[in-house]
Amino acid sequence: MPPQNEPAERHTLSLLVDNEPGVLARIVGLFSGRGYNIDSLTVSEVSHESHLSRITIVTTGAPMIIDQIKSQLDRLVPVHRVIDLTVTGKTLERELALIKVRGSGENRREALLIADSFRARTVDTTLESFVFEITGKPDKIDQFVSLLAPLGLVEVSRTGVAAIGRGPEGM
Amino acid sequence: MPPQNEPAERHTLSLLVDNEPGVLARIVGLFSGRGYNIDSLTVSEVSHESHLSRITIVTTGAPMIIDQIKSQLDRLVPVHRVIDLTVTGKTLERELALIKVRGSGENRREALLIADSFRARTVDTTLESFVFEITGKPDKIDQFVSLLAPLGLVEVSRTGVAAIGRGPEGM
Repeated sequence: MPPQNEPAERHTLSLLVDNEPGVLARIVGLFSGRGYNIDSLTVSEVSHESHLSRITIVTTGAPMIIDQIKSQLDRLVPVHRVIDLTVTGKTLERELALIKVRGSGENRREALLIADSFRARTVDTTLESFVFEITGKPDKIDQFVSLLAPLGLVEVSRTGVAAIGRGPEGM
Repeated sequence: MPPQNEPAERHTLSLLVDNEPGVLARIVGLFSGRGYNIDSLTVSEVSHESHLSRITIVTTGAPMIIDQIKSQLDRLVPVHRVIDLTVTGKTLERELALIKVRGSGENRREALLIADSFRARTVDTTLESFVFEITGKPDKIDQFVSLLAPLGLVEVSRTGVAAIGRGPEGM
């Protein structure tokens, strides 16, 4: 049982792993088998070194749990590196969302105004609907979605977080 | 063994699943256990219905294999819906990438010009480096990355694909 006095924290972990069958299954299995939370997960090839994939996992837990997760991930052979981007603190985190709203009249105009103020791009338009593309930190996207909710929100598709360190150095 | 005469196709599958521990592990396990390929995977909460998550998987395989994958996913209890967005054909697919380049002089100017022509945003700048944020279809991002490769590419972090149907209807 985690100590009651440690509040849960949200951490973004970046993993460089071998691009092989079964690696993602092992990592996801490690989380689910121990009851660790996954808020979002993204995996894709590191295009210029195609034998490697990068997995970015956003997880929430008490500091002791986060430390456990990191050390267990580090012990997996196909995992080359585990970086806790929340700890390094010099991280850019970005997520993309596609958001469909349907409405007419005042609701439609209001949705466009909100999209404009969030610098969202309109990527599909019909006489009664829009699809907006927005990028930003997850909080910003949450806020955008909650503002659109009363205006005819149809659906939301989000990518989860991609992250990279600030400054000239590689991770 | 897949028939040799069926060329592999790239399909984007959208899954609406219960937001419960272990669901992602079962889905990823289904792919790895049967040797199905995962090109990219994104999972995140459907924010306005928090008991559901959306998983978007890009996979490559012969048509027969893709059909097998879909019917096996459909049989999993926590999977509410499986939609093959490649078949519906009216789909917007977007990925986000953060790309760091390091260089000076002509290479630095050239990187900025390329970023500009791809409508990438500069989200971090130092005297010797940039981080660009770009969104688009995976092909576009591949092309952007390959143009930057000789100009001092340091690293790439990609989200994988989020997808949504065109038009006013929900999926």
